Amino acid sequence: MSLESGTYSKGLEGIIADETTISRVDGPHGKLYYRGYSIEDLALNSDFEEVTYLLLYEKLPSSSELSEWRTRMRASRDIPIEVQIMIRTFPANAHPMQLLQSVIAYLSVYIEHTIQHSPQCNCRDTLHQVVQMASVIATFHRFRQGKGYVQPLPHISHGGNFLHMMRGHEPEQYEARIMDSCMILHAEHEFNASTFTARVVASTMSTCYCSISAAIGALFGSLHGGANERVLEMVREVGSKEGVSAWMDRAVAEKRKVPGMGHREYKVKDPRSYVMEEFLKELSEKKNDWHDYEILKEIEKQFRERMEEKGKPLYPNVDFFSGAVYNLLGIPKILFTPIFAMARVSGWLAHILEQREHGSRIYRPESLYKGEAERPYVPIAQRS
Amino acid sequence: MSLESGTYSKGLEGIIADETTISRVDGPHGKLYYRGYSIEDLALNSDFEEVTYLLLYEKLPSSSELSEWRTRMRASRDIPIEVQIMIRTFPANAHPMQLLQSVIAYLSVYIEHTIQHSPQCNCRDTLHQVVQMASVIATFHRFRQGKGYVQPLPHISHGGNFLHMMRGHEPEQYEARIMDSCMILHAEHEFNASTFTARVVASTMSTCYCSISAAIGALFGSLHGGANERVLEMVREVGSKEGVSAWMDRAVAEKRKVPGMGHREYKVKDPRSYVMEEFLKELSEKKNDWHDYEILKEIEKQFRERMEEKGKPLYPNVDFFSGAVYNLLGIPKILFTPIFAMARVSGWLAHILEQREHGSRIYRPESLYKGEAERPYVPIAQRS
Repeated sequence: MSLESGTYSKGLEGIIADETTISRVDGPHGKLYYRGYSIEDLALNSDFEEVTYLLLYEKLPSSSELSEWRTRMRASRDIPIEVQIMIRTFPANAHPMQLLQSVIAYLSVYIEHTIQHSPQCNCRDTLHQVVQMASVIATFHRFRQGKGYVQPLPHISHGGNFLHMMRGHEPEQYEARIMDSCMILHAEHEFNASTFTARVVASTMSTCYCSISAAIGALFGSLHGGANERVLEMVREVGSKEGVSAWMDRAVAEKRKVPGMGHREYKVKDPRSYVMEEFLKELSEKKNDWHDYEILKEIEKQFRERMEEKGKPLYPNVDFFSGAVYNLLGIPKILFTPIFAMARVSGWLAHILEQREHGSRIYRPESLYKGEAERPYVPIAQRS
Repeated sequence: MSLESGTYSKGLEGIIADETTISRVDGPHGKLYYRGYSIEDLALNSDFEEVTYLLLYEKLPSSSELSEWRTRMRASRDIPIEVQIMIRTFPANAHPMQLLQSVIAYLSVYIEHTIQHSPQCNCRDTLHQVVQMASVIATFHRFRQGKGYVQPLPHISHGGNFLHMMRGHEPEQYEARIMDSCMILHAEHEFNASTFTARVVASTMSTCYCSISAAIGALFGSLHGGANERVLEMVREVGSKEGVSAWMDRAVAEKRKVPGMGHREYKVKDPRSYVMEEFLKELSEKKNDWHDYEILKEIEKQFRERMEEKGKPLYPNVDFFSGAVYNLLGIPKILFTPIFAMARVSGWLAHILEQREHGSRIYRPESLYKGEAERPYVPIAQRS
């Protein structure tokens, strides 16, 4: 992007901030790749632990590497008692994203982790910051319901164990698989605002915990996370398949946005939304509950027709179906953005490491001053 | 700055990220202005509370505005008991910057503060996030020494009260004044990495607490905060005025950087370092302890001579004298970066509000993909 001197691009849109080898969004073709592997391949064939390995080590693990990796990740699932206490004393009416941001900064002092302001930090090895995010969210949910801490299970997937620690009993196999795959879909997405935040903080040679905690703060913003909550609220408002048309008339009249539609990067349908829709169909089938799915499909159909009439096609993004998926997995809305964080943390960590390995240059852009010219200080007695 | 398509500037150097009316660095002339007022004028005539008002409200307050403002800020000094407990249970060997990042995210749920994902957030009014930073740092220091919580004093300046809460007794007037003015010097400095972090997080419409917590994470990085600690370590290593020459020979031979020298923005002497030097002289006089000052001046002199020989002049920045100032105020080195944070928080908050008021556009730069091309997923049994 070429900018005249003294001009700039709001939100750094179109400005290249750095090189990366982690992921690539092909917006025009609706494709997403992690380290060269398509998101569909990964979501349907891999699991979250393997994808985390891929993101951090730039390759798929061998059989023995994967086995050692799983053992290590699963050994990190248990939360230290001090952090359990912090979660328990956290006010129940506070948002879990605030807890997460606070607890991740807090966590680092309770685990064996050499905090080094350098590329040699062992954050690729300890993995607590990746693994315990899920345990913290599940435990927050338990305590909020007045229930006890659930010991993690070592024999099931990361997503499956999250459901287990949240529910207090082991999930069905298909539930565990779908939860785990949803986390793959959310693990990484280039230089979105939270990942960019993680990179800016890492560029100062701050720790990975500090960087991840900062990224959580960014994801909490309503322009970043939270769209799937709004989709589910829309589905509840619409109420039934028959209600879609009237709801959409009203939404258009009130110039309301339809949540879960359109994406800054994708010019066609978000590739993750195809996979997410399959998961929603499978869950609707297994649970024999097609209510949300039918409403969503009707919204998608009617919205597409209206947008095509206007010549402004907009397609579902990953958030369009994910809220209904989580709902059928028994996950309350307040956990949707935290779940986004517990998946994206793998991408954040990969970006933090990449930022350091590039021989970090601290992010220090310019600002364009538009304020007051130099003026003398006026003593208080002489101020009007 | 003009960039060819596909090229970029490391660390966004020279790239304008947004407009601002908050502060201006005039690098070539060695000047710094907050809202048009020179840093020298503010440091010598104003106080931290008034400067915070100026940064947030874009003007110096009238007499009645300032009086109401002081009352409000001073009423926020006391820390809620839950947060005191969190500080007390924080491991003593952990760095207080980790505590700060965690506690600021935590704090917001314990105070009366409407968290709104919007420009209408009342964060300009509550001020706990600005005021309590100092109280948290002082209390961390107390607890670390096995001492008790000190109730804040309402009748002294913000900097003075910090010394009081840290020491458990009221500081001398000149100490309070110098501490408070040091905070003015550090309150704001354009789009440095921590402030930029705060803006990126705020651009998602996250809360001011989340944004400030993230900025603390960035300031913890060794490329951002911490230079004044390294200056004081150098002074201790040098040992005496007579030791400077030999130390500098060794530093040059080992290609070590001299900390506290040079600044990315200032081409001449950092204007804040003149003021800081005056404070150091005053304190050295009052305490009758010229040890550090003499060593620092000798380092400055010999370093300038050597750099002038090389035709690469480098001048002291604000960090060159600040460590010795804090040391004479009885502040241990581990608190230096937290003190930077407790001053810079006023600037961070001003930038967060400005970011929102501009009608925020989320920061979402591009990345330049340099990784693997599309490749098929290989089942584990077939991996070599």
